[in-house]
Amino acid sequence: MIRDLIMKNRSYRRFDNSVKIENSQIEKWIELARFSASGRNMQPLKYVICTDENVTRKIFPFLGWAGYLKSWRGPAENEQPVAYVAVLLDKSLAENYYCDDGIALQSILLGAVEDGFGGCIIGSVNKGKVAKVLQLPENLDILYVIALGKPSETVVLEDAETGKIEYWRDENEVHHVPKRPLSELIFKSI
Amino acid sequence: MIRDLIMKNRSYRRFDNSVKIENSQIEKWIELARFSASGRNMQPLKYVICTDENVTRKIFPFLGWAGYLKSWRGPAENEQPVAYVAVLLDKSLAENYYCDDGIALQSILLGAVEDGFGGCIIGSVNKGKVAKVLQLPENLDILYVIALGKPSETVVLEDAETGKIEYWRDENEVHHVPKRPLSELIFKSI
Repeated sequence: MIRDLIMKNRSYRRFDNSVKIENSQIEKWIELARFSASGRNMQPLKYVICTDENVTRKIFPFLGWAGYLKSWRGPAENEQPVAYVAVLLDKSLAENYYCDDGIALQSILLGAVEDGFGGCIIGSVNKGKVAKVLQLPENLDILYVIALGKPSETVVLEDAETGKIEYWRDENEVHHVPKRPLSELIFKSI
Repeated sequence: MIRDLIMKNRSYRRFDNSVKIENSQIEKWIELARFSASGRNMQPLKYVICTDENVTRKIFPFLGWAGYLKSWRGPAENEQPVAYVAVLLDKSLAENYYCDDGIALQSILLGAVEDGFGGCIIGSVNKGKVAKVLQLPENLDILYVIALGKPSETVVLEDAETGKIEYWRDENEVHHVPKRPLSELIFKSI
């Protein structure tokens, strides 16, 4: 059931860093993005897969983690992602990528979750620095970085009350994510 | 398997107009978007579900269909979508919706496909006219319209050769969608 998979696909920010992922496995998740819809079928997104520890270590400091958790500076060393996928726009193909980014990101993460992994879409990226680490050419712009690994945290959804949507962690380190009720999301049903 | 579902989730533009969809069923697909990731967990997207024939008939002329098929003016009356979901940005919540749109669209469509339906994300929308039909307030901007129904066409994927990515229809009305090879999409794997 897609519902179960989507429910399991939480934004995980802490991982069991001892469980590695093969580049070939991540390729299969990117293939899911390849098979997904693209505006005007232009397919201007490109990807870098990175599992090399020497490189993941260099990328990590350039990522922002969980903006609402002010006192948390990101995952400890043994909780850090074992892999990254940089999602890039190839400007030599198109400037406008419509909603291709979200479609691709969702496909990739659903693939990862089905295989027992998980991740987090990171938009707070020092793009210039990461581009330098990855030695990207001029035509490739970083849109997002997906952090990937074997999740080692519990994330639960709850109903947002009166518009309070900031996620939070309780005393047991459980991560709570308030979601606006469906009745708020559906403006009209005719 | 998510791969099977993603493969089945093609952009369908012709439907069996005799097969209707209940609003309550579409609500369940939107619930999948509700459970999906949102940038800063802001959840600024709203939705209008529309299955009322009087209204779908008014929306149809304001949608653009398959830009690459120059001689095709869109689905014939008995092939038209039976439902629309308008995906809206609630500007009173946020101006920036990151990649929430694609994530939500993908979740909704995967739900539809699992239930035996399908659809097409339409970006070519006369937004002012559709907003008027749906009587939307100022704070709600239309981002996309999803056309939904029971698909009545065959869509096949093929490998794009030398960058030719325009979809096309053969003499049997089969819709072909060339996808760039994975080797082109993965810029680097390290």
